[in-house]
Amino acid sequence: MDLNLLGKQAQFSAYELGQTDTPTKNRILLQLADAVAGHRNEILKENQKDLAKAKEEGISEVMLDRLRLTDERILEMAEGMRKVADLPDPIGTSEKMWRNEDGLLIAKQKVPLGVIGIIYESRPNVTTDAASLCFKSGNAVILRGGKEAYHSNQVLVEILQTELAKTSVPKEAIQFVSDTSREVAQQMMRLNEYIDVLIPRGGARLIETVVATATVPVIETGKGNCHVYVDKAAQLKMATDIIINAKCQRPSVCNAAETLLIHKEVAANYLPVIEAALNEYNVELRADERAGKILKQSIPATEEDWYTEFSDYILAVKVVDSLDEAIDHINKYNTKHSEAIVSDDYFATQRFLQRVDAAAVYANASTRFTDGFVYGFGAEIGISTQKLHARGPMGLNELTSTKYIVYGEGQIRQ
Amino acid sequence: MDLNLLGKQAQFSAYELGQTDTPTKNRILLQLADAVAGHRNEILKENQKDLAKAKEEGISEVMLDRLRLTDERILEMAEGMRKVADLPDPIGTSEKMWRNEDGLLIAKQKVPLGVIGIIYESRPNVTTDAASLCFKSGNAVILRGGKEAYHSNQVLVEILQTELAKTSVPKEAIQFVSDTSREVAQQMMRLNEYIDVLIPRGGARLIETVVATATVPVIETGKGNCHVYVDKAAQLKMATDIIINAKCQRPSVCNAAETLLIHKEVAANYLPVIEAALNEYNVELRADERAGKILKQSIPATEEDWYTEFSDYILAVKVVDSLDEAIDHINKYNTKHSEAIVSDDYFATQRFLQRVDAAAVYANASTRFTDGFVYGFGAEIGISTQKLHARGPMGLNELTSTKYIVYGEGQIRQ
Repeated sequence: MDLNLLGKQAQFSAYELGQTDTPTKNRILLQLADAVAGHRNEILKENQKDLAKAKEEGISEVMLDRLRLTDERILEMAEGMRKVADLPDPIGTSEKMWRNEDGLLIAKQKVPLGVIGIIYESRPNVTTDAASLCFKSGNAVILRGGKEAYHSNQVLVEILQTELAKTSVPKEAIQFVSDTSREVAQQMMRLNEYIDVLIPRGGARLIETVVATATVPVIETGKGNCHVYVDKAAQLKMATDIIINAKCQRPSVCNAAETLLIHKEVAANYLPVIEAALNEYNVELRADERAGKILKQSIPATEEDWYTEFSDYILAVKVVDSLDEAIDHINKYNTKHSEAIVSDDYFATQRFLQRVDAAAVYANASTRFTDGFVYGFGAEIGISTQKLHARGPMGLNELTSTKYIVYGEGQIRQ
Repeated sequence: MDLNLLGKQAQFSAYELGQTDTPTKNRILLQLADAVAGHRNEILKENQKDLAKAKEEGISEVMLDRLRLTDERILEMAEGMRKVADLPDPIGTSEKMWRNEDGLLIAKQKVPLGVIGIIYESRPNVTTDAASLCFKSGNAVILRGGKEAYHSNQVLVEILQTELAKTSVPKEAIQFVSDTSREVAQQMMRLNEYIDVLIPRGGARLIETVVATATVPVIETGKGNCHVYVDKAAQLKMATDIIINAKCQRPSVCNAAETLLIHKEVAANYLPVIEAALNEYNVELRADERAGKILKQSIPATEEDWYTEFSDYILAVKVVDSLDEAIDHINKYNTKHSEAIVSDDYFATQRFLQRVDAAAVYANASTRFTDGFVYGFGAEIGISTQKLHARGPMGLNELTSTKYIVYGEGQIRQ
């Protein structure tokens, strides 16, 4: 396939889409949502092909479930698109406008990024999610899904494009990379002429590959080695609630906790309590020497374990001498995603919040809250773990750039 | 030299500097400024070495002037550092704080980027400029200047480090790459573990090399192929003032104009007028066919000319049929830096401002205004021509990232 042509078309379409007004974009989004909902049978048929192939290849039940579409799930996808239509449009807005000393009136206006490339894994709902968020923010999108969901993704984009073709926006504003080979993916990662930013969505390995290979600017997302630190001044009931929530509510997601740090003064009393609570979820504990001596059942943690996002019912446990040791441990091993302290001590929480380096830091709340919907953005294209451009949950605002618009009256520079 | 050690030290120092309060940073900046001003003789002596070597190598008078330091210029550098101390500190500020539906209190706080690498050419004043802006915004900096200014840069950093060593901030917060070889520069561009962002400052070739070579995220700066479009409804006296200012006031800078686009309805009357005005500055005109027939003296413009940042007394000239042809030409050939329209027509100016894709777009003002000082930022580390993170003039705010600070009361996610 000709990725250059696809890129060129996306760039052209981005320009047109970028100039499209909000009511038109919203109307089209609702049309697209109706089209997805209305073609459920077609989508289910194609999804069956992906499922059949996956079963043949002996894929795990968890992965099968991620891949599976149902009537209900498709309607949810359409509903998600309608919700994006309801969100405020950032494009064209300016948070400030000022007059400078030369009398120029200067506004910093939000504009689309241009063309966004999304490289993602199995779940077909990312197709409509990403397409609608990029569309609403005036960006063309180039979607490259995994080969497991090839038929599902393909039919979804076909439906979107067929509907788009009936509107004023070129159908190439939503593009699909139908060749799922590694070579084409790599070519896409180097398509600097046509792609303005690349957002990988998926497991740690996918993200690492994109960061290492891409020359197009990347927004790194989703790697989450998150910690909960139980301070000596913690309310232990609250600590248990938070740890169980952070570890067990959904262990596979990036804002789940992977390591428990506990102050030495409360370790002897508290570790047996939290061990019992974690036992109900069959959580495996990997402990440092001091924690291991207190816990009934644990295996010794390796240096590697402190770096690991288990994404499973496994928790590393370490006893620390002080708040600062906890902070240092986190800043050394974390992926700068989400970190929490449980403490009643005002100064301990302030110090933790200011000194821990992460996209989101919590005092007395679960790390699981790091999420665009929870934060009130109404949407989420991913959670950035880098410092450039956007950090933490990314909604529509994070899919924009800016430009300075300057109104003069004939001024020249002295 | 061991770039990894240097990077590691910078990272450690960035953490300390990032936690330093504003009054302390300001006090240290004033100390650093005094140290630079107080060591003028030492600096001049080292600068003489660079000048002598440059003369030996037959460097141009313009380049020699860029390299030359004087008592006055050194005092200006120190004064520039004092002005940075006077600027508001973005670090720690939050533009908003809100309570979400779970009752969490969420603030988006500005934090330093971490370690900033600056790769720059001849002018030694970049050393103190960049060092003070990075310092004020809580970032460690790794400075890699050109070999022409080696002795000047070296002594400047030595003075800064010696002074820093007397303070609470580690002296390694300002680092100097003393090996000016290409190999070490390339190694620096790939020092992802320790450098958070790389900002090249210099000519187009330097910037292209950095963008092509770096794996560290780069903020692309300074390439400026800027246009002035004279609409059919333009005030011609105003157009002349703006064109002369944009082309001739300082042709070597990135916000100078390189191409004049003129509406066909005013071309026959106006081109002779602007030609006469440009003649006084000996500006060479490179014209398309229609403009060439009207101008008294011009050479035919090549396709390459439309893409070129001449940085000299050369101006490409093209007659266009319409506003939209001007917009299309600009969007095709520009470097997305600064673009201007001269017109009395309200709808023409609005259309130009909205549809031209650039960091800064002007109605009835010179492109020369794109500048952090002019915009009121009080400083400038460069002018970004990319869409990610920062676009246009970058001041202290653009040297920051953010983190979400979340105050809970024991909340867990449902």
